[in-house]
This record gives sequence, C-alpha cells and structure tokens, in this order.
Amino acid sequence: MASRRKKDRSPDKQIISRTPFPASSKVYVEGSRPDVRVAMREIELSKEGAKPICVYDTSGPYTDPEADIDVYRGLTRLRDGWIEERGDVETLESSSADFAKQRAADRSVDEIRFPQIPKPRKAKQGCNVTQMHYARRGIVTPEMEYIAIREMQRREEQMEYAAQHAGRSFGASIPVDLITPEFVREEVAAGRAIIPSNINHPESEPMVIGRNFLVKINANIGNSAISSSIEEEVEKAVWACRWGADTIMDLSTGRNIHETREWILRNSPVPIGTVPIYQALEKVDGVPEELTWELYRDTLIEQAEQGVDYFTIHAGVLLRYVPMTANRMTGIVSRGGSILAKWCLAHHKENFLYTHFAEICEIMKAYDVAFSLGDGLRPGSIADANDQAQFAELRTLGELTKTAWEHDVQVMIEGPGHVPLQLIKINMEKELEECSEAPFYTLGPLTTDIAPGYDHITSAIGAANIGWYGCAMLCYVTPKEHLGLPDKQDVKEGVIAYKIAAHAADLGKGHPGAQVRDNALSEARFEFRWEDQFNLSLDPDTAREYHDQTLPAEGAKVAHFCSMCGPKFCSMKITQDVRDYAAKHGMTDEKSAQEGMEQKSKEFRDRGSELYVRE
Amino acid sequence: MASRRKKDRSPDKQIISRTPFPASSKVYVEGSRPDVRVAMREIELSKEGAKPICVYDTSGPYTDPEADIDVYRGLTRLRDGWIEERGDVETLESSSADFAKQRAADRSVDEIRFPQIPKPRKAKQGCNVTQMHYARRGIVTPEMEYIAIREMQRREEQMEYAAQHAGRSFGASIPVDLITPEFVREEVAAGRAIIPSNINHPESEPMVIGRNFLVKINANIGNSAISSSIEEEVEKAVWACRWGADTIMDLSTGRNIHETREWILRNSPVPIGTVPIYQALEKVDGVPEELTWELYRDTLIEQAEQGVDYFTIHAGVLLRYVPMTANRMTGIVSRGGSILAKWCLAHHKENFLYTHFAEICEIMKAYDVAFSLGDGLRPGSIADANDQAQFAELRTLGELTKTAWEHDVQVMIEGPGHVPLQLIKINMEKELEECSEAPFYTLGPLTTDIAPGYDHITSAIGAANIGWYGCAMLCYVTPKEHLGLPDKQDVKEGVIAYKIAAHAADLGKGHPGAQVRDNALSEARFEFRWEDQFNLSLDPDTAREYHDQTLPAEGAKVAHFCSMCGPKFCSMKITQDVRDYAAKHGMTDEKSAQEGMEQKSKEFRDRGSELYVRE
Repeated sequence: MASRRKKDRSPDKQIISRTPFPASSKVYVEGSRPDVRVAMREIELSKEGAKPICVYDTSGPYTDPEADIDVYRGLTRLRDGWIEERGDVETLESSSADFAKQRAADRSVDEIRFPQIPKPRKAKQGCNVTQMHYARRGIVTPEMEYIAIREMQRREEQMEYAAQHAGRSFGASIPVDLITPEFVREEVAAGRAIIPSNINHPESEPMVIGRNFLVKINANIGNSAISSSIEEEVEKAVWACRWGADTIMDLSTGRNIHETREWILRNSPVPIGTVPIYQALEKVDGVPEELTWELYRDTLIEQAEQGVDYFTIHAGVLLRYVPMTANRMTGIVSRGGSILAKWCLAHHKENFLYTHFAEICEIMKAYDVAFSLGDGLRPGSIADANDQAQFAELRTLGELTKTAWEHDVQVMIEGPGHVPLQLIKINMEKELEECSEAPFYTLGPLTTDIAPGYDHITSAIGAANIGWYGCAMLCYVTPKEHLGLPDKQDVKEGVIAYKIAAHAADLGKGHPGAQVRDNALSEARFEFRWEDQFNLSLDPDTAREYHDQTLPAEGAKVAHFCSMCGPKFCSMKITQDVRDYAAKHGMTDEKSAQEGMEQKSKEFRDRGSELYVRE
Repeated sequence: MASRRKKDRSPDKQIISRTPFPASSKVYVEGSRPDVRVAMREIELSKEGAKPICVYDTSGPYTDPEADIDVYRGLTRLRDGWIEERGDVETLESSSADFAKQRAADRSVDEIRFPQIPKPRKAKQGCNVTQMHYARRGIVTPEMEYIAIREMQRREEQMEYAAQHAGRSFGASIPVDLITPEFVREEVAAGRAIIPSNINHPESEPMVIGRNFLVKINANIGNSAISSSIEEEVEKAVWACRWGADTIMDLSTGRNIHETREWILRNSPVPIGTVPIYQALEKVDGVPEELTWELYRDTLIEQAEQGVDYFTIHAGVLLRYVPMTANRMTGIVSRGGSILAKWCLAHHKENFLYTHFAEICEIMKAYDVAFSLGDGLRPGSIADANDQAQFAELRTLGELTKTAWEHDVQVMIEGPGHVPLQLIKINMEKELEECSEAPFYTLGPLTTDIAPGYDHITSAIGAANIGWYGCAMLCYVTPKEHLGLPDKQDVKEGVIAYKIAAHAADLGKGHPGAQVRDNALSEARFEFRWEDQFNLSLDPDTAREYHDQTLPAEGAKVAHFCSMCGPKFCSMKITQDVRDYAAKHGMTDEKSAQEGMEQKSKEFRDRGSELYVRE
C-alpha cells in the first residue's frame, strides 16, 4: 500500500472480491428483535416450484450487492448495540498498550494506517464481558440467538431434501431437531463451545465453535519477512471468507503487522485469531531470549484492543517437556512452541505464559478474547505423532482450561499436526478427557509426509476423520505447506479442501440438515440440471469451467446427457426407464420385485423354459 | 493418429513421457533365477553416507534411460518365458473372436493398427492357466516370486528409516516381517489376493491385489464418443503409470476401441482392465436391448486374446434387484449396471451374464483373466448409499465368487461409490463376509456430493478410510468426475490423490516398511535438505515448483531456513538448540527432565525465587 496516497480510494476501484455467487442471493433472517438479522445465502434452483437451498454463508456483506462496502471505512459494526446495551463496557480514548501508542505517534506509518481507527472498548472495572460469563449467569445474548438461527440454516424450509442417514457421533450431543438460543447458551456455559467475539470486533458475524454444532474451518493468512502487502492480506482474508473460512488467523510476522491487523479486523466478517508471541518476537528483533512478560502483556492488550477474537497461547510448553522432544524426528515444529522452548532453555525457567496465566485470563475477560491453547509440542512428522511430549502438553492444557474457566474465559484447544490414520481417534478421545470437553481445534492432521505440494489432501483426510470423531474446528493446510507462502489460489484450494472435510464430518456425525445440499445437488445431477449442479457446488466457477472444457456450448448445459458418456448412451437416462418399468409393474421393493419376477418366471416357463431366447 | 503415415515414427519423436525422476535410478533386484528381475526405483539422498531410498515403481521401463522404448514395437515381453515353460498354452494363428477377425480383414483400419500384433495364446484343451490354479496346486510361479520381492521393496536395506507406529488392520493378516513367494501363493490360493496376469499380456510387471499387501490404485483412461485419439490414450496410460497407477482400466466407448486397446496393452507395464459390455454395446450401436450372449462372448474372447488382465462383469445385476433402485435419488449410475438393467427389463429375463456365468469362467481360465465383479447397483449419491439394491447385489457377487473359485478363476469385487464416512466401514465388513474375503476394489468412495470439481478430494477421504479398513485397490476419481473428461493433468491429480489415500491406508494398517519414505522425507525436511525433500515426494516437480515460487534462487535450496518463516526465525533451527541443551543436560525423557528441572529449580530458589528475572 506504499502508493496508496496517489491511488484512487473510491470503493469501485478497490481490489476486494465481491461478486455474488451465481443464482444466489443474500437473505437476512430476523430473530426476536430487529437488529438480529442473520445473513445466509440462498441458491435459486431452476426446477419449477422448487424452493431455494439455504447454505451457511461466511462471506459477509461482500457478496451482498446492496451492501455499501468501502475497505477504507470498514464493515458495518453490527454488534455495537448489543455490546453497549449490556452496560458493562467503557470506551477508552486510545489504546492502553504502549506499543499501540508508539505506533499512533509514529508519523512514518501514517500512510499505511487505517483511516478511522475506532476507540477501543474495555470491560468496566470488575466486569467480565465474555460470552461464557453471560452464559453461566443464564443470559441468552443476541450473539447466541444469532448463532442458533445461523446454525439452523432455515432447515424448516428444506424438508424436501431433509432425508439423511443416521450419523455416528462418538458421544457428541447434537440436537436432533431444533438448535435453540438456549442450547447455544448451555453449550457455552459448559465450556463445550465458544463464541469468539471480542467487544472490539463488532464487525464480526457471530459464530460458534463446538462439537455439537457444524464443524468449522480456519484459514491462515499473513505476510512474512519475505513478501506481501497489507492490501493483499485484506483481500486474502475476504477471499478466504468467500470460499468458506469460518475464522481467519492473521499469522503475519513481518513489518507493520499492527497496521495490517487493523485493516483486517475492520474489514473481516469472521472472528480473527492471532499468535501474539509472533508480534512480541518482532518487538525484540527475533531473539526469543529477550522476550519478557511485560512486553508480551503489552502485546496482548494491544491486540485485544484492536479486536482480535482469539489468541493462540502456548502456555503448555513447560520446561520439563522440552527435552522430551530431543529425540524426535522433527523436533518442535510449532513456531510459538519453539520460541517458548528456546526462552525456557535460555533462562532455565518455566514458560512465562504458564506462570502468568491468571494475569492473562484477566486480560482475556476484559475484552472477551478466547483462548486457543496452543499445541507448541505438536508432532511435525508421522514419526513423532502421539508421543510423550505431545500428550504431556495436552494434560497441561487441560489444567489451564480449568483455570481459564474459573475466570469464565472461553477456551479451545489446539491439536496436531501429523498423525497417521490409526492414531487420530485417540487424539480426540484424550483431548475430550484431559480438557473437559473444551472444543478441539486441529491443524489437519496430515496422514502422510510423502506428498509435499498436496498437503491440503494428505491433511483433509485426517481433518475429515477427526472432525467426524468430534473436532470442532479444522485449521486448513494449503498445497504450499512446507514449501512456500500460499497465494490466493492456494488459499482457495485449502479452504475448499477443508470445507469438504468439515462437511464430510458433519454428514458422518449425522448433523441434522447436513445432507440437504448433497441431496439437492444429487437430484440436480440426476435430472441433468447442470446449472443447478454448478450453483449448488462449493466452487461453482470451477465446476462450470471443468464442464465447459469438454462441452463448451450453452446447449450442453440443458442436454440430457453428460460429457462422460456422450449423447448416445447414458446410465442416468436408462434409470428413467427403470423407474417407468417399476412403476408400471408396481415393483419398488424386494418383495414386490420377487413377486413380479415369479409372474414373469411363470410366463417364461410357459414359453418353454429356455434361458436364452434369441429375439 | 490419422496423420501417422506421414509422421516420423522414430522413438525419439514419440510423445511418450519417459524422463526419469530426479535423483532416481531404476534398479532390478534379481530373484532365484536370472529372468526374475524386479524393477524398483531408488532415490539417491544428498546426505553423506545415506543409502538410497527404494520406492515401489509402477512406471515400467519408461523411466529407465537404458531401456529401448518404441511404442510402435511395444514393451519387452518379460513373462513370455514363464508362460511358455509351464507347457500348458498353445499359440493360435490368429484371434478366435469373430470381431477381431473382421477388424483384421478391414483395410480401412490399417492406418491405426498396431504394427506387429502378436499371435494370441490360449490354454491347451483341458488346461487352466490361472495363477489361482497354480497356487492351489502348490506351485510358486515366477510371478509370485516377483511380487514377493516387489512388495518387500528391499526393506532390509532401509533399516535406518524402519521405525514405525503399530497399525490397526481390522483383522487383516499382514506379514510382520518378510513377504515370501510362498505367502503370495497362499493368499492367491485362498482367494484373498489376485495376480491379474493374462497370458496374452506378458509385457506387464507382476503385481498383487489383496488386503495383506500394499494398497493398490487404479486409473481409468479411455476416449469416449466425444473426443480423444489413440496416441493420447497410450500416453495417458504411460503417464498414469508414471505417477503411480498400479493398474489401468481402458473404458473407451468410442470408435476403434479394439485398435486402441491393442496399443495400450502392448505398451502397458501394468495390468489392464476393461468393461467388455461397453464394447459389446458399441457393436449393437448403443441399443442395450440388442445385446446377446453370443455377441458378448465373442467380445470376451476378443479382449482376452488381446491380453486384458481383468474384466468388470456386472453379473450381479439381477432382474429382481433392478426395481429396488426405482426410488433412489440417483437411480443406477454404473454404465454397465444400467445397460444390463435395461436389457433385463426389456426382455423380462435374468441378466445373461448371471445365467452364463459358468461359461464365462471357462473363458477366463483359458487366458487367466481375473473377474472384477462389477457393482452395477452401486449408489450414485450420498442419499443412496448402503441401500437394499446395493447389498442385494453384493450378496450375489458373493455367490458368483464361489462359482468362479470352483473354476480356479481369480476374483475381486467392485464397491461403491458415494458413501458418507459413518457408512464406509460396514461396506468393507459386508464385502469380506459375503464374498469370502475376495479382494475389494472400490471407486472412492466420495464422502460428500457438494464439491464437483474436487471429487478427487471428496473421494480420497473415503478411499483412505476404506483402504485402511481393508480395501485392496482404490479406483481413482479425477477432479473432472461428474463434469467432463479428464485430461493429462487431471489424470495426474487423480493418481496423486489416490497414492496419498493408499499410502495413508498402508500406514494406518501398519504395513511393514510403509513409513520408510515418510521418515526419510521428514528427516530431510528437518535437516533442510530441500533437494531430498523434493526428490522423495510423490511429485517432485510440483514440490520444487511451489518452493521456487516463493524462493526461486538455487541458494535457497541449501539455506537453513524455509520460505514460511523467513531467514530471521525458524522453529526447526531452534529445535537444534533444544537438542544441544538436552544432550548437555542428559535430559531426554520425562524422568531425567524432571530431575534436571529440580536441579534448576534449586538454583532458581537459591537465586531468590523470583519467577521473572530481567536479564
């Protein structure tokens, strides 16, 4: 954004992706009060009389042509009223963080600063503004109501496609029928679900992470020391949301990450997570030994007052666990984990995030930042999966969860990483047990190490399985993992692979309504409604493009044959004959079919019992 | 190939892919006799003193720079001697199939005919030339010995990387240590494994399909009525083998499929499967009702005498099962299944493949063609998974398996298709039970229907799971599935996704030696041996390209940092410090770590017990 001053700032010149999806419209379902307006996407079908299919929509106002979008102004602050009406927050004149003050005073960053930085909010003295705190006091917040409506996705309108297989949910308690605001409250109160919703990120559309809800996915973005600009990062976030990211983690490690984050937050319709130690490390020029609690604390406040919704905090990397990684194939691969390990070793002291955990909780509850307790000792290879270091840390994360809950601070638990198929389930089981059912949030896991360049696939396999077993959110992996920095196409590939994994998991668990989109798309496929098939798919652009590579003509999209078998022969066409036959002979189950056969058999015997009669 | 006459036919002008893999060499491991020379690929490592890593190699002689390749002449017929020395075959002057004779006499196809069509072999009167027949008589064939050596992949040379996790194999009986020729024989004799090895396809390198061996993958190729040439199809087969296809199915449905098949067979180092009903249907101009047993029989002989190694035969589509599909979301989606369903309905008669099954067995055993008993009633959508029609057919396939085994004919069983995660395992269990442990060969399954354009991923998830549960071979799905015809890039994407799924399954089952490549690659990653990481990966080209997009310089490939975090900070680098620390303090497990901590703790208390000491 170096040349922004000379740039035309008008919204129609901005590079942000906001083309609506084909045949789709944004609808807003109103809750019990007019300011609870839950955004969804409806896909129109070409079939006579068919109701539109409603799908979960993470793309925010960008895909609403009516929305007035200007990245220099940021999104509408839809939760402002809800936050204010609770009467437990105060507005600060400016950030309380030293670093934020320095940056505010630094004229050299004027050029890249977000134009109208909002004044930060903070809980009033003695108040706790977490959704968990409200939930435990029996309060159903507008956020919870929003989520209940959002998770339901107008299921009552989709009864035509509602049939689905019984799931297997490994002990989850998924509501059979209705997801109520009260159910959301109960889950949050119990710690089984979190609503990442910093009071300083009111632009975010409320969403929930918990195993009794739809499986969510996270996309990582972030520049690094090597490349990329603020503008690219904002568009990458919007782009990731477009394709289905439920949350975004900003993992920037380069210059100007304070400013980049402001732009992302002001323009993000989904919760934003960060790993504050990355920025803290920048502040000490990349020398882990020089990190201090004070500096880290200032970073937490800086980011919390900008609006970050969850923090990855590697408080479970204890000094005594670090040497357990010495004999590993790939040591410590978590950046945060290795920073803290190095700090612990250099100082011969316990991890300061662990020793200051209660103070961190105080900060978290003043803004409602959720913990994402980091798995700093996660395995970095199949060889290191499920080892002593990993599970020792998990136990500690369980202890920390209890501490956080004493403060009514929301918690999720990060998990691996690289795990072969047969060792995935035990990860989920241990997490539920050690961490008292706090939501699990895993990176993949990758199920093999032999396919760099395809780790969105090696890990989607593991992600689908762990999601099915109960993991609440899946952190995506892009094709560039282990090799380079993802570009926009990689972000999309990663997000789509993970939407597939999450949805496969929802179907596996038998989440009510999960099969609606599959059913509608399958029916469209069977009925040769090509446009509907494209429009219902996760990526209509690619589906259409692939079809057109073989049969580009517009006429082919209404043709009653597909490009695989050509016009002369088509199995789906034949199926129609089967239906006609069965209907004519009243044969639609095994019994009547058997009877029909017997009658035919008699005719056959009457004709002389030749098995084969030449026509 | 219309312009072939004017074309330069010299091998160096041929379009066939034969670049060797980087840092790789073809090695031939000799068995008990000099003509058992098992091809493998060895990947050289840049690490001082490291032995090369041996990987399973399906690419055939194409990747051997020493090999003399000429697609107009075909591959070396490496099994000729073994077939002849058994003394149970005769050589025919020409094909016994009417259709093949017609084509031979048709001068209009001269231009596209393979130049030197070999004379077909057939079992002598009263002889049975199947590998199962030999196995049951206690004979260990050279094919079985080849396979034992091939499956072992010189494991004894790879002890440095041999450590691996215990698997979970759901009742499989995978050899813990050594795969012997005798073990291969036993598995084939029991029907738990097959060796597709038509006596007329001696160019094929022996391989085995069975759940106690490495999981295999199949790639479909084939032109259709819409597009593609013979030349493209041959290259597509070679290309699919290059990336890892263990078998190829030629599903051509257009003109000149007899000639196309000859080219593919003569140039294929892997077994070839077909669905003979496709060609039979071509012969009756696409009108299923006009199919006859005689015509089909002639097609079987035509193809068997060309060398097809396995036939998909939809003999389980019984008339009484057909109406069970009438209420399905997507009816019958198997092309073969719907052809036969239509035939059954049109004639009100039982499927002629079922009524003539014993006669088919007689043909199969005269050439050693294996059955791939087709799942003509497989589900075409998540909605239709595991329904009555599907499982009724599976029961019948189990009966047919017994009949085939009475003839010592090898059998595998085809399976679905579209199945959500929670319903996959029961498919494997039922198959093992109903079909007496004959190898299972599934298409995917796709675990959701909402992602056309990404069905290599939706199905790799299902494929990895069913492979882990015991499926012996996974039929790939390309990104173009449901949308269009795969091009070369799609074939590669599909094959790689399925190599990942198959390998994830091998790791999951705990197949001995399966983790060698993962371990070697992970170590290379940890040690920043970029070139080794690329070379050990399933797709070195893509891995290198992705790396170079971020850090193109050659220097970056020896740099001790990766492109994700940049040069200043790197978690893997820090891990080295951890190792040094642990080694110095003798802390490599929890106990000694705890002791080390206690000592440090004492020092710490001695210093005044301040948790945080500013340096």
